[in-house]
Amino acid sequence: MRNIKLLIEYDGTDFVGWQVQPKGRTVQGEITGVLSRVLQEPISLIGAGRTDTGVHARGQVANFRTVSTIAPDALLRALGGMLSDDVVVHSVDEVPETFHARYDARERVYRYYISFRSSAIGRSYRWHMPYRLDLELMKAAALGVEGTHDFESFSKNGSEVDHYRCHVKTSRWKQDGENLVYEICADRFMRGMVRLLVGTMVDVGRGHQSLDSFQQLLEERDRSKSGMAAPPHGLFLEEVLYGGR
Amino acid sequence: MRNIKLLIEYDGTDFVGWQVQPKGRTVQGEITGVLSRVLQEPISLIGAGRTDTGVHARGQVANFRTVSTIAPDALLRALGGMLSDDVVVHSVDEVPETFHARYDARERVYRYYISFRSSAIGRSYRWHMPYRLDLELMKAAALGVEGTHDFESFSKNGSEVDHYRCHVKTSRWKQDGENLVYEICADRFMRGMVRLLVGTMVDVGRGHQSLDSFQQLLEERDRSKSGMAAPPHGLFLEEVLYGGR
Repeated sequence: MRNIKLLIEYDGTDFVGWQVQPKGRTVQGEITGVLSRVLQEPISLIGAGRTDTGVHARGQVANFRTVSTIAPDALLRALGGMLSDDVVVHSVDEVPETFHARYDARERVYRYYISFRSSAIGRSYRWHMPYRLDLELMKAAALGVEGTHDFESFSKNGSEVDHYRCHVKTSRWKQDGENLVYEICADRFMRGMVRLLVGTMVDVGRGHQSLDSFQQLLEERDRSKSGMAAPPHGLFLEEVLYGGR
Repeated sequence: MRNIKLLIEYDGTDFVGWQVQPKGRTVQGEITGVLSRVLQEPISLIGAGRTDTGVHARGQVANFRTVSTIAPDALLRALGGMLSDDVVVHSVDEVPETFHARYDARERVYRYYISFRSSAIGRSYRWHMPYRLDLELMKAAALGVEGTHDFESFSKNGSEVDHYRCHVKTSRWKQDGENLVYEICADRFMRGMVRLLVGTMVDVGRGHQSLDSFQQLLEERDRSKSGMAAPPHGLFLEEVLYGGR
């Protein structure tokens, strides 16, 4: 069996997320359907990150196994011709048989975009913020997230995991023209974690929560004290990094 | 009667253009409907530029007359609450009774975006170009457009106008990161003119038409020799300028 790795971009607006669901259009379902038709065999597609409804990806990675001998370039062209225009596969590569897009991922990078100007154009790609935010407080809150912490306070209810520890390599807010951008790079992410972090840091920026209480949340493991999740359409899975890079 | 001026942004993706049509959702229709409901009187809205199906605007200008005494700020808030999210009114100002958004416009600025990278994110805002283009040739073609010319060769069939002369103040291609941007500023535009110019300049950039033959088109007044119109979703009405600015 050959093992094939895909680099995938998608606009999450019209998807109920990455993962196949009983109902609704999913990115995994869309790509799996096209692969099965092209390769004429059942395909099981493993994604690096399970993005939620409405979340976008510039650098999702996935892999699948196939008995087909199709050349990667030919498969790339077939995918380009058959996928709907809100999913683009940027590369198709044959990888060692042991490669696993999810388990082998060493780091994932997410970005969250906030805009202070209400706009029609590009409204599906950033959270419009009608309030002023204290960026310095938010930067301090973000820095406190770096390191190894238990993120139970920032996990969606119903997460079935052994533990909530994540190692956060970087967590930073940056001004980008008229927008604010939050970038977080970690070894793993809990369900809903980035959106809960962003929503709660925005509470800090608005003065609705103190920096101290935000920092306590990382120790308290109390979901009831974190803020509202930021809306999904500002969130992008930017990149997935593997060992050896 | 008071005369009110609006500065309007819209995402043209889900509109059949600015101007009210027998069928389909239009920006003019959308805003007129909301204004009539808020002000409780029939409203006649005059737009500076009649953008086609799928064309976007960052700086459309429109005006209407009203007997209402509503404060501009209150009207701005009402519009914000009632318009769908692909139309945003950025300002509401009372202007002299003689102001006419269309006839008083001194210059209009359009931009056209081309991207060489196929992408899912932002695909509604640029033309994806799978071919290499000779930017130097396109820059030379664009410069030739500057000045006063007859644009009959670059007008959609069925344009009902007295003449096709436009004074083009600037016409330039610029590299913007991974994108190419064409900006044209003129006193008036024929129907479909920017898209026909872009489509034909792309033909020049691909080597399908010579720079000479492009320049002849500006004198020949022969629609059959211009290229295909570039698709609407790369085009933005950026700004409308009035006297005294």
